Amino acid sequence: MTTSVGKMRRSDGRGLAELRAVRFQLDFTDNPLGSVLAESGRTKVLCTVSEENTVPRFLLGKKRGWITAEYSLLPGSTDRRTDREAARGRLTGRTQEIQRLIGRSLRAVADLEALGERTLWVDCDVLQADGGTRTCAVTGAYVALALATKRLLARKAIERSPLRDSVAAVSVGVVGGRVMLDLCYEEDSRAEVDMNIVATGEGRFVEVQGTAEQGTFSGEDLAAMTALASAGVRELTRLQREALAAARP
Amino acid sequence: MTTSVGKMRRSDGRGLAELRAVRFQLDFTDNPLGSVLAESGRTKVLCTVSEENTVPRFLLGKKRGWITAEYSLLPGSTDRRTDREAARGRLTGRTQEIQRLIGRSLRAVADLEALGERTLWVDCDVLQADGGTRTCAVTGAYVALALATKRLLARKAIERSPLRDSVAAVSVGVVGGRVMLDLCYEEDSRAEVDMNIVATGEGRFVEVQGTAEQGTFSGEDLAAMTALASAGVRELTRLQREALAAARP
Amino acid sequence: MTTSVGKMRRSDGRGLAELRAVRFQLDFTDNPLGSVLAESGRTKVLCTVSEENTVPRFLLGKKRGWITAEYSLLPGSTDRRTDREAARGRLTGRTQEIQRLIGRSLRAVADLEALGERTLWVDCDVLQADGGTRTCAVTGAYVALALATKRLLARKAIERSPLRDSVAAVSVGVVGGRVMLDLCYEEDSRAEVDMNIVATGEGRFVEVQGTAEQGTFSGEDLAAMTALASAGVRELTRLQREALAAARP
Amino acid sequence: MTTSVGKMRRSDGRGLAELRAVRFQLDFTDNPLGSVLAESGRTKVLCTVSEENTVPRFLLGKKRGWITAEYSLLPGSTDRRTDREAARGRLTGRTQEIQRLIGRSLRAVADLEALGERTLWVDCDVLQADGGTRTCAVTGAYVALALATKRLLARKAIERSPLRDSVAAVSVGVVGGRVMLDLCYEEDSRAEVDMNIVATGEGRFVEVQGTAEQGTFSGEDLAAMTALASAGVRELTRLQREALAAARP
Amino acid sequence: MTTSVGKMRRSDGRGLAELRAVRFQLDFTDNPLGSVLAESGRTKVLCTVSEENTVPRFLLGKKRGWITAEYSLLPGSTDRRTDREAARGRLTGRTQEIQRLIGRSLRAVADLEALGERTLWVDCDVLQADGGTRTCAVTGAYVALALATKRLLARKAIERSPLRDSVAAVSVGVVGGRVMLDLCYEEDSRAEVDMNIVATGEGRFVEVQGTAEQGTFSGEDLAAMTALASAGVRELTRLQREALAAARP
Amino acid sequence: MTTSVGKMRRSDGRGLAELRAVRFQLDFTDNPLGSVLAESGRTKVLCTVSEENTVPRFLLGKKRGWITAEYSLLPGSTDRRTDREAARGRLTGRTQEIQRLIGRSLRAVADLEALGERTLWVDCDVLQADGGTRTCAVTGAYVALALATKRLLARKAIERSPLRDSVAAVSVGVVGGRVMLDLCYEEDSRAEVDMNIVATGEGRFVEVQGTAEQGTFSGEDLAAMTALASAGVRELTRLQREALAAARP
Repeated sequence: MTTSVGKMRRSDGRGLAELRAVRFQLDFTDNPLGSVLAESGRTKVLCTVSEENTVPRFLLGKKRGWITAEYSLLPGSTDRRTDREAARGRLTGRTQEIQRLIGRSLRAVADLEALGERTLWVDCDVLQADGGTRTCAVTGAYVALALATKRLLARKAIERSPLRDSVAAVSVGVVGGRVMLDLCYEEDSRAEVDMNIVATGEGRFVEVQGTAEQGTFSGEDLAAMTALASAGVRELTRLQREALAAARP
Repeated sequence: MTTSVGKMRRSDGRGLAELRAVRFQLDFTDNPLGSVLAESGRTKVLCTVSEENTVPRFLLGKKRGWITAEYSLLPGSTDRRTDREAARGRLTGRTQEIQRLIGRSLRAVADLEALGERTLWVDCDVLQADGGTRTCAVTGAYVALALATKRLLARKAIERSPLRDSVAAVSVGVVGGRVMLDLCYEEDSRAEVDMNIVATGEGRFVEVQGTAEQGTFSGEDLAAMTALASAGVRELTRLQREALAAARP
Repeated sequence: MTTSVGKMRRSDGRGLAELRAVRFQLDFTDNPLGSVLAESGRTKVLCTVSEENTVPRFLLGKKRGWITAEYSLLPGSTDRRTDREAARGRLTGRTQEIQRLIGRSLRAVADLEALGERTLWVDCDVLQADGGTRTCAVTGAYVALALATKRLLARKAIERSPLRDSVAAVSVGVVGGRVMLDLCYEEDSRAEVDMNIVATGEGRFVEVQGTAEQGTFSGEDLAAMTALASAGVRELTRLQREALAAARP
Repeated sequence: MTTSVGKMRRSDGRGLAELRAVRFQLDFTDNPLGSVLAESGRTKVLCTVSEENTVPRFLLGKKRGWITAEYSLLPGSTDRRTDREAARGRLTGRTQEIQRLIGRSLRAVADLEALGERTLWVDCDVLQADGGTRTCAVTGAYVALALATKRLLARKAIERSPLRDSVAAVSVGVVGGRVMLDLCYEEDSRAEVDMNIVATGEGRFVEVQGTAEQGTFSGEDLAAMTALASAGVRELTRLQREALAAARP
Repeated sequence: MTTSVGKMRRSDGRGLAELRAVRFQLDFTDNPLGSVLAESGRTKVLCTVSEENTVPRFLLGKKRGWITAEYSLLPGSTDRRTDREAARGRLTGRTQEIQRLIGRSLRAVADLEALGERTLWVDCDVLQADGGTRTCAVTGAYVALALATKRLLARKAIERSPLRDSVAAVSVGVVGGRVMLDLCYEEDSRAEVDMNIVATGEGRFVEVQGTAEQGTFSGEDLAAMTALASAGVRELTRLQREALAAARP
Repeated sequence: MTTSVGKMRRSDGRGLAELRAVRFQLDFTDNPLGSVLAESGRTKVLCTVSEENTVPRFLLGKKRGWITAEYSLLPGSTDRRTDREAARGRLTGRTQEIQRLIGRSLRAVADLEALGERTLWVDCDVLQADGGTRTCAVTGAYVALALATKRLLARKAIERSPLRDSVAAVSVGVVGGRVMLDLCYEEDSRAEVDMNIVATGEGRFVEVQGTAEQGTFSGEDLAAMTALASAGVRELTRLQREALAAARP
């Protein structure tokens, strides 16, 4: 497989290294701690943060908090309706994989001692899916979490911020032999390689997950993809900061 | 219990016979058939309609279609986070009761033969809950369904409209001895009697469900509540019509 | 739809306003607190009351008791065998709706403080089903509960009766354009409107649930149905009293 | 352990080799094929037979029928309420073991080819439990099945009887060092050895299941128990025949 | 059915009263308490013992321990792959029946007070299945349990051995009219009668479970089978002792 | 975090770039298609391949086969017993993630058309777990699959090999600031970064999954880890080839 990061245009007119339009609507619902509608192109994910005054059993008495995430596709979010997992009575492996990824990503930049003995539940519900829902969820979840910690600080429930850095995620892939940033659904469904990268505002990696969907990929492909994704995360970090700067107190 | 429909003001300043502010955002998501964000005060329900080219087993070969509904509270929609039913592996009785109510209400105004051999799935996902989520879901679901049938007619998938009338729902209750229309959560949680009424645009009843939450109620209470709810449905019917008149083709 | 409460006879020879034959066999099984086989025509429901010396978590430490109900159709109770819910691993929505209704109806006439910190489980198992199983269950469950509280008083487990009033339920419907009391299965399956009413011995309502199964119904239909059902509950109340008067100590 | 079949009396006055009072109420419910309330002392099991016009997948096209059984304890049938398996979402191992035993026992005396391509479901629901519910279920289920095949023959749904012999079951055990027939709950709960025997009218064994609940048992114990149980089955066979002779056509 | 224990040879060349080759590989895995790979002909069962420092709720505070067993067929252990129970979400009745049998058999020779307040979990996982997996599991589980108690004594976690006797199990059956010991799969699948016997080193019975798979069996058959099985258990007991004598400290 | 691939020794005496001892026992069980016990240090995984003559629904009529994998930890495989997923009734997210990984890895080197319309089930059951069970499962599963395809070719069930390349997997991580190959459990549990790499015999990547368990990692860490893992896979490829060369026909 030969890959290149060229000037070529994509089906939606974007350049290969270009993100889709990103938007964060803060306080989209009145959730007491934080609610953000994160959009990346047509993908829309509602991220809310709720507080619970207990911690999971394995943390009892350890004077630390916990951050956990749940993820779900609304049935009508996809072109062909997705069955509700509650109706089937079990979560798919894909859902569990994604919610574990979101939780780990957020905890990677958190100081759980600063959080005190409480759990923050971060719910990411996909209202509309056009590829990249898990990366949009991570990126939006961070914004909702930052909003939530701001409110906890404001009401003096915590003394210092439990966030040490920001975190964002983006997909990158090889489609038709070309390395591309931020795949939409149509690109994702015919990608040879699909990769998701989660990285911090300081540019360090939290997760790197690359999968060959068709065939395999070389070490050069891997290097090209990680470089392109890192640039994408830098841009997302800037947009997260902008949005949070404009948050209401 | 003595009840009255007086001029008194409520906690949010409304009169006893006044609906909360209602809003329908048509095509809130790009769902191919129909998507409506219905709001009633702070309650927000996303209603989407998806099409499936089969019918349930009991209708096979009968040249009729089917309309079914599913309902869910997003975890972050409530003040205190609601556990995800998919995580617990089963629907609560409340959820099943509500989705059966929504389905029956829509089918009551539908001509399933005109629909042809297809199923319309109506998903009602509550983004924010402040009381009256089931009635807001019925009222919004009708708007989404009307939008969907319009699109099916436009692409000539069906020959005539499968909707014979409109349908809307509202709650009414006795709170502190007074009959009130359209209870918000705070009112609902201390209501003596809670009643939901589903009625058609022509003013006929589809469902009447009244429950004494504390104590019991008299025949006069029942008559006062049904009269007030009927007036509420008339107003909702007018608002549904206005919203649909402004729909994009 | 034009409705009337005429002198016409029904398939089983009853008048439109006539109940089926009602029978309560007290102490049908040796259950320590109370066991009643309630019959309404061919419908037979075994209602038993069991005692547990704890309360649900939300009542811990509140010095109040709880009354909860469970309902089930025996597989061989219906003409075409009903699958066992235990074999499928989940309760249907219908079952959950019914057991919530029975529980609420009994609690509406109970003084839970007088019960002390205990839970009474009321099990309603349908041995034979011919329509009206949920209303027969409510009516029989009250008799079993009255028997149980009598025994609790006799062994001085409680000091005063936790029952403030009696409660009974009956169905009413519109079948072939006529309002009828206490529908049997054959009538129920072709009813245009089906309504269940739960009311107290003093004639006040606990629940009013009317559903248009085909088409819709008017305000006049609603008034006619509630009046007829109220008369039915008065007769059931009399029969409950008679049965309890004859109970062994 | 020394065991003996002596003249000693038991807590309920029976001799060691004496069955409890047995009663079969035929057509206890109106189930179309067969319904029997079988009683053995205080133990009461309602056995009904329902017909389904298909066979399990592994028999498709083999021109044979199938007989299957389900068993359940009603929650209020025991002194301390038994949780409903449907509420927990799974059958206990005990229930599955028992329903497999009942099914095998009935099939052991059946000619499944004579049954044609249909399934008979035999439901055994325990209304009151005082030990020996599984053996009472087998014995009663045979009576219900005989009734059902009689009705199938009467309406010429089958040409010859699918029953080649009768079948009945009884428990036997070692309690306080003595071998006893047909244990009631109080005896069963302190038995050293508990054995269930299923045998045919001709005196041949279908199942022999002996379990040491405390300690172990010798070959002589085994021989004494099987002899006593065989005599018990002979008496039950006679009672089954009497009951069936008196069946309405 | 006429049965005989003759000199005839079986498909695998064994005499009718001959066991398959038995092997116990002690410490097959490094499990801290005990791990045995038990083989009976081609049947291979890995038995491991794990320790947990709690007891089931019904034993809390009773200063006794508990022994419980779980059993599973590995999917690839059978000629035609067996579906994984974890994937289906529930244990089959057969699995539950077997794991209850193993647990009871081990507890029959155990002094649970000597075990102290701990639970020993005995896991029997079938790596290869060729008939007799449950009996091989019981026989191997005893060896693993003896190993485990030896280790608990060695590290002075307990003061005296909680094993009062040994226990082993074997199958016996009637195949083609002949009574045979230790059926392989091919024999088992065409057996008229299938019996499993669990007995102690001292020759006393713990369980006797005989089932007529086709037709029925006589008292003489039962006597012949129990005698043959008893001889089989004696031989297994000798082999268990030999294996344990060679155990590393 | 500063990382280095030095000459330092690890707790088990290995060099940082050294694999644990690898062993493949071919035909460990008699499974008709292929059975391999793969060992990597103390980690032991039994990999078996079973054949089914159908394909999943989405492949019906497409003249292609399918390869799918299941993974499970035996309860006694871990130091502290792992609960059986079948007993809990659901697969954990971790299990689902791993079995999806194994399946994708095998399919990445397979020509599914050459397989014909059949499904190969690859079961990976961990008999003993000491870290790296998922990578040992992938590596062993390939050997079992190669064995299975050899047998299918030998009995002319397929015409050409469905394997285009080999595949193997290894873990790599940062522990105490040093990059290490093939982590054992003790190393894995205190790793800062944990990475699993799946690659082909030709040295191309199939999966790259790196997770920061504590903190984050740099681009240099990522490059060092992928280089070290690639060398590990080369060595595993050589060992797979050797083992397969010695397979019985």
